This record gives sequence, structure tokens and C-alpha cells, in this order.
Amino acid sequence: MKPSIPKGTRDFSSDEIIKREFIFDTIKEVFRLYGYQPIETPAMENLSTLLGKYGDEGDKLIFRILNSGDYLSGVTDNELLARETSGLSSKICERGLRYDLTVPFARYVVQHRDEIIFPFKRYQIQPVWRADRPQKGRYREFYQCDADVIGSDSLLNEYELIKIIDKVFSRLNISVIIKINNRKVLSGIAEMINESAKITEITVAIDKLEKIGLEGVNEELRNKGISAGAILRLQPLFKLKGDTYEKLSGLEKILSGSTTGMKGIEELRTLVYFIESTALRADTELDLTLARGLNYYTGAIIEVKSKDVNIGSICGGGRYDNLAGVFGMEGVSGVGVSFGADRIYDVMNQLNLFSKQRRYLTQVLILNFGNEEIRFALKMQDLLGDSGIKTEIFPDALKLKKQLSYADARQIPYIVIAGEEEVRYNQVTLKIMSTGEQRKMAPDDLLLFLKSELNL
Amino acid sequence: MKPSIPKGTRDFSSDEIIKREFIFDTIKEVFRLYGYQPIETPAMENLSTLLGKYGDEGDKLIFRILNSGDYLSGVTDNELLARETSGLSSKICERGLRYDLTVPFARYVVQHRDEIIFPFKRYQIQPVWRADRPQKGRYREFYQCDADVIGSDSLLNEYELIKIIDKVFSRLNISVIIKINNRKVLSGIAEMINESAKITEITVAIDKLEKIGLEGVNEELRNKGISAGAILRLQPLFKLKGDTYEKLSGLEKILSGSTTGMKGIEELRTLVYFIESTALRADTELDLTLARGLNYYTGAIIEVKSKDVNIGSICGGGRYDNLAGVFGMEGVSGVGVSFGADRIYDVMNQLNLFSKQRRYLTQVLILNFGNEEIRFALKMQDLLGDSGIKTEIFPDALKLKKQLSYADARQIPYIVIAGEEEVRYNQVTLKIMSTGEQRKMAPDDLLLFLKSELNL
Repeated sequence: MKPSIPKGTRDFSSDEIIKREFIFDTIKEVFRLYGYQPIETPAMENLSTLLGKYGDEGDKLIFRILNSGDYLSGVTDNELLARETSGLSSKICERGLRYDLTVPFARYVVQHRDEIIFPFKRYQIQPVWRADRPQKGRYREFYQCDADVIGSDSLLNEYELIKIIDKVFSRLNISVIIKINNRKVLSGIAEMINESAKITEITVAIDKLEKIGLEGVNEELRNKGISAGAILRLQPLFKLKGDTYEKLSGLEKILSGSTTGMKGIEELRTLVYFIESTALRADTELDLTLARGLNYYTGAIIEVKSKDVNIGSICGGGRYDNLAGVFGMEGVSGVGVSFGADRIYDVMNQLNLFSKQRRYLTQVLILNFGNEEIRFALKMQDLLGDSGIKTEIFPDALKLKKQLSYADARQIPYIVIAGEEEVRYNQVTLKIMSTGEQRKMAPDDLLLFLKSELNL
Repeated sequence: MKPSIPKGTRDFSSDEIIKREFIFDTIKEVFRLYGYQPIETPAMENLSTLLGKYGDEGDKLIFRILNSGDYLSGVTDNELLARETSGLSSKICERGLRYDLTVPFARYVVQHRDEIIFPFKRYQIQPVWRADRPQKGRYREFYQCDADVIGSDSLLNEYELIKIIDKVFSRLNISVIIKINNRKVLSGIAEMINESAKITEITVAIDKLEKIGLEGVNEELRNKGISAGAILRLQPLFKLKGDTYEKLSGLEKILSGSTTGMKGIEELRTLVYFIESTALRADTELDLTLARGLNYYTGAIIEVKSKDVNIGSICGGGRYDNLAGVFGMEGVSGVGVSFGADRIYDVMNQLNLFSKQRRYLTQVLILNFGNEEIRFALKMQDLLGDSGIKTEIFPDALKLKKQLSYADARQIPYIVIAGEEEVRYNQVTLKIMSTGEQRKMAPDDLLLFLKSELNL
């Protein structure tokens, strides 16, 4: 029986890891450039930390860890026979696997509040686990790459996160559009038409403008129970045109009656003012239909899409007030972004942006002629290794053809041959796999030649 | 109620991560230098993969993940009421958390046998989870750093792993003793005195020679039921003296009647021959009492101890035949070592070897004078950041004293001041925190000065 791994999980081969680490390293370097510091939290959290933070659906998707020892000791026979699995699981499981990095971060901030210097800029790159139904591009174990600032209300933080997004995708060579919105503007719109309770339905409908057209949107709003008068008052919104400044001016007229809405416009104006101070490679776009994370974002909303691959959002974030309130620390505002490493990987694969990533691979294979010649080979390996040249000796004295086919399969570019004759004259033969060329030389010349070939 | 994390798990702060990554990066670099390639496996494995591989005690220490949905559907009322928790857990849990990296590696090799090029040299650095009772230095979540070669019987692999150990600890600046033994020698000793079944008891007793003396060892052997004749025949073993060659020659006389024992001596001789071909910084020592992993090692046994800190083994390994046999792939021999990152961390902390690790920290803080001056500050941040200088702008226009105390707490060495006056003349004031010195200069001169100060 061939062994396998749980559905929705993955093994990663060296090739995949080299590519993935390129993405992680790029993101980390940019985070650090802007002063973000790493933290790590345990894979397991207490269920009391996790439950109730992701909605009922989220709670169901948390992997629970069975208590050790006699996990049934606190459960009565009647409770067992009732088979009320949800309640029972809380009695037999105290811990669960991390579902995202935001809740553990909030827990970390509260738990370590006395050691932390605020404003606290942290990044965290770790796997999370969700018991989602596995499907193409959706896994039960995947990495999140988050950067957040906590303890500062300044819109400079939003600006900086947008710069980070721009720099990461610029370094990865992915062309993106950064879409920006503000939750307060959405609230203002709902308020202005007296439908604050239906803000989700309204934004979902507006989001479809491009797809189903103005008539379609109005139809959907009617179906969701929005009054004819309210729909009428929404119409100027759909006619907003022009660049960001023109859109904001138009919006200002529409929302002039809503304090919240006007605050949102002011925040957007300030953010745009910051963004225009320096050059961005990415296009930014004010997108009033952008409504991700509507449940928890309270200010800026950010979403990033690839221009060349249609794969949904590859990065997103926003401002959330009172992140740590649920753990008893009130009034601390935060703003953060999260990069979707798996989708970024898919985009780069599709656009063939990984071609030159071969940095961990072995550069030299020294052939094995048996224990007479091996000491010479071991000295060669030391000589090359001390200069950072990745060098293997083939471990078994097999037929040379077999050893060469290993080099071929592993794509090792240089072969060092040191047989009886070479050892006698303190020489080696270098074989260059790409051309088949062979040259005899002294060990020191080999080192010089390889260092120059490999740019060391 | 202050939130907390599960017993035996840890949060890591930036300071700790910077130190830990220094250890991981050093180990990775050396692994790669010798041609080892990374793989990663999922945190969760099927319980069918994990159970039965670590003994009964090990099975109890595996964290099990409760099945999603109606996990009781396959369990009868009678089974519930029987409260046979061990059997029941197999019905309500299909998956468990990785307990080590060796079994997932064996599973990986069998599952991907058609894609793998043999001999397969892989490294893997990932956390593992064990439901051990937490105590000082023992955690329920900790990292293992493993390198293994599979598919080659050559003792060059053992040699190479010893070179890797030597290079890793040399780069970390930790003085170590590398102890070497061979399971076949231990088998030979037990065989020679006709007590093969008691090999564990014999090696445990011999292991105490230094601590309890010769009489103590003989006493313990008697208590374990070893016959007087057998103990008599063991005595020459305790009198082995001299360097490794002398010890091996003496041992050869004692074990001449055991084919297995003589094979072990021959393997040790070959390994020593390889080791003496090149220079090692560490001391190596033939230690016939070394008996770690007796259950699964079949050839070389390796253990590494710090010379300066008494903390037990900080790295260990050995050869195991038939690693993948349990997954249906027979006759594949492997050899590997595992570095204990947590203990290495403790050793380095005790010896104060981490002092200069500050590489992720912010280098420059630009003070915030409000939205009039901010555009100039943003341009400065871009200018410095483009040269790789880690630069923050304080996000809020607070009193300068507050901003400076943030720089102080974060240990940021350079402050850039660009207030109204500086902006007007396109200048900045640089404050060097270590000396308190302040200098006015043009932005380009600032860049040149900082690049030179920071060796960029």
C-alpha cells in the first residue's frame, strides 16, 4: 500500500522550495527595509483564543487537537450518548491549530504588552490550517505572510504598507493594480440612503457593476429590499468618472450629509497625497466597490491583483480598530496586509518568472575511483568547499557512466575527475557538462577557474 | 483574563528569531555546501503513517487531530460507553502532527520514489510536536534540523556528515567533541559473551564506566543477569587504552570471533581513514559506550557534545538500514544526523556567542514634523531605502521627545531630522545616537555618509 498524505496538504520538493523561498525572502527583505520585526507564535493555540473570532463558519474550520491521556474523563455517559459533536469537541479538545496570523498576533500583543515598544511593527510568515474543502488552489495547510502596525492611527502606516506592496511585486517582477477603498465611505453611502443595516448587500451589488451593468445592479438592490427612493439617491454614485481627485470631489458632494462618509473621503485624500509624494511602480486605483473584510475593517481597505494572470486577490489588507479588544486591551488600532504566497507562486509559475532560481544546487561533482584515490578527492572537496563552491563526491565507486548519469540527472554543471593518473601528478581533469569539454589542470587552477565561472 | 498559550509551546520575539535564524541559516548553508537539497512535508500526517514507528510510548505522545464534521458517526453507543480512549481515538482521529522528520522522510521517499534521483541527499528543517510533559529545555513544539542520505551504503556519507557537523559548529564558534561508535561493534560484544538478547542492558552498564567505575559496572551487569563467565570475558574491553588505532587493534583481538563485530571494526577503520584525510576542527573520539538510538541504528552511531556547556547531546545520528521497509520499499539504507536547534541556542546564549546579531534592525528613524514636511521625509525614506538602508518614519507627529525615546528603545542608531528649516534649504540634520553628535548635510551626502557607516 503506497503511503499518502492528508487531503489538502502538500509535500514540497527542492525545486518548489527554492522558488517558494525566493518569494518569502523577497517579502521578508522588504518588510525589514521598512522596520518591521519578525515574531513567531505556536502552531497550537488554546481554543479559547481561537473560537468566536472567525464567525460560526470559521469556528467549524478550526482543526482541534484531541487532549492527551484520558480525554473522556470529564464527559458523562449521557453527554456521550447525546452525540452533540460540537459541544463535545470543546470538552475533549483544549487546543486548536492556528487559523490565521491576525488573532495570534492580537493575543501576542496583549500577552506581551509590557515588553513591546509601540507603535509595534511586526511581520510573521508561518503556516495556517483550515479544514476547508480542498479544491484547486485551496489547501488545508498554507502560508500567510503578514505585516501589521499596531498602536498608531497615522495614515502614514497605510502609505507604507502600499509602498511595501509596490516594492515586493516590483522585485518579483509581477505587474499589479493596487485597489484602495475606505470602509467609512461605504458606511457613508449606506447611511446616506438610510440603509446602514444593509451595507453588505449594497456593496455586494455595487461590486457587480462591471459584470451586470447599471440596470442589473439596480435590479439586485430592489431584490435585496432596498427602497426605490434609496436606489434613486444611489444613482449619482454610479456616474462618478475621472481620475481619483475627480472621483473624490464627486463623492464629496454625494456624501456631504454623512460625517462618517466625509471622514472616509478625507482619509483617502491624505493617503493619495502621501502616495503621490514618491514614485510607485504599480498602478493604484480608487475602487468604491472594494469591500473585502467588511466585518472587521474600519478604515482603509486594500486589495492587489495581478495585471497578467486572472487569479483573484494576491495580497490584501486594511485598518481594523480595537483588534486586541477581544483580549481585554481596548483602543489599540492596527493596520496590516497579508501576502498570499501560494497565489503569488502560481502567478510567477504561469509567467515563467522563476527560470533562474538555481541557487542551492550542487555545482561540482567529484567522481569516485575507490579508496586509493579518495583522499585526494576529499582534499579537493575541502579546497572547493572552503571557497563556498557546492561540491559533492559521488559516494560509491560505481562505473563512471553511472556516476555521470547522476550528475546529468541532478544537472550538476562541472565534473572533477581525479583517477590514478591525475593523483600521481597532483592534477585533476575538469569536465564541463554543457559543452563536453575536458581540461587537465592543477588543483589551485581548478579553484581559480571555478571561482571565476561561478562568480565567487 | 490575560490570554496565554498552551503549556510547552513558545512565542518568539524578534530578538530570539534573529538568533534562531542565524543558527538555522548556518546549518542550511553547510547542508547545501555538501549538496543536500531541501524538502518539506505537511505538519499533519495520516495516523497510519505515524503509529507504530516510535514504540508504544511514542504513539502516546503523538498529537491527534479530531476529524471534522460528525466525528462520532462511525462509533457505536457501546464503543462510546466502553471509554476505551486509545482505540476510540483512532476512530475519531485520522491525522496526527509530525512527531519527527525521519518517518515523514521515509514516507516521502516511498511516495515520490519515481521522481527522486538516488542517492538522495535531503535536508529538512521544520517543527515537530510531542505531547511530552513540558519541563526546562523540553518543549511540545520544537524544530529539528535533519540531513540524511538514502540509497548509498558508502561510509563516505558518514564521513561527510561528520564534516558537516564540524563545519556547522566551527561556524557557530562552539567547541565540540564528536563521539563515534558502531552498532555492529556493540552487537559483536554481546555476541562474544553469548548475551545478544541483553545488548541494551550491557551497553547501558558500560556507559556508566566513568561514573561508577569498573566494580560498579560489573555489579550492575550481575544484577541484570549477565553470567560471571560473560562478565569475565568482558573485562579486556574495559582495559582498552591509547588512541583510536590502538583501541581498534585491542578491540579486534577481543572481537575476532564475531563476524559482525569485525565488520564494525572495519567500518570504523575506514571512517577514521577518511576523517584523517582532511583537517577537522572538532575532536573526534571513539566511544564504545555510545549507544543512542540502539533500536534503529545498524552501523555508525554519532553524538556531539559541547566542550564548554554541560547540556547533553546537541547533535546526533547514525546509519539505519531499511528505513523505508515499513512503507513497502525494501533494502534502502540511509544515514543521517539531526541538529538540536534549541540546545544549540542555549549553548550559544550561555557562551554569549550571539552578541553581534542585529541584522534585521532598523538603522535610521526619520522624525515626523507633520504633513507639511512629510513629503520631504517620504522622499528621504525612498532615497535611503533604495540603497538597502532600513529606514522608518515615525508615523505620528508626536513631540520630538517621544519620537526620540522610541528610537532609543528600539536602539535605532541614526536619526534624520527634516523640519521646516531643513526642508526649505533641501537639507537634513543627522543625529548619531551613540555620540549625540548632530550634523547638517545635503540628502546625497547623508546617503554617502550612511552607506559608508553601515558598510553598504
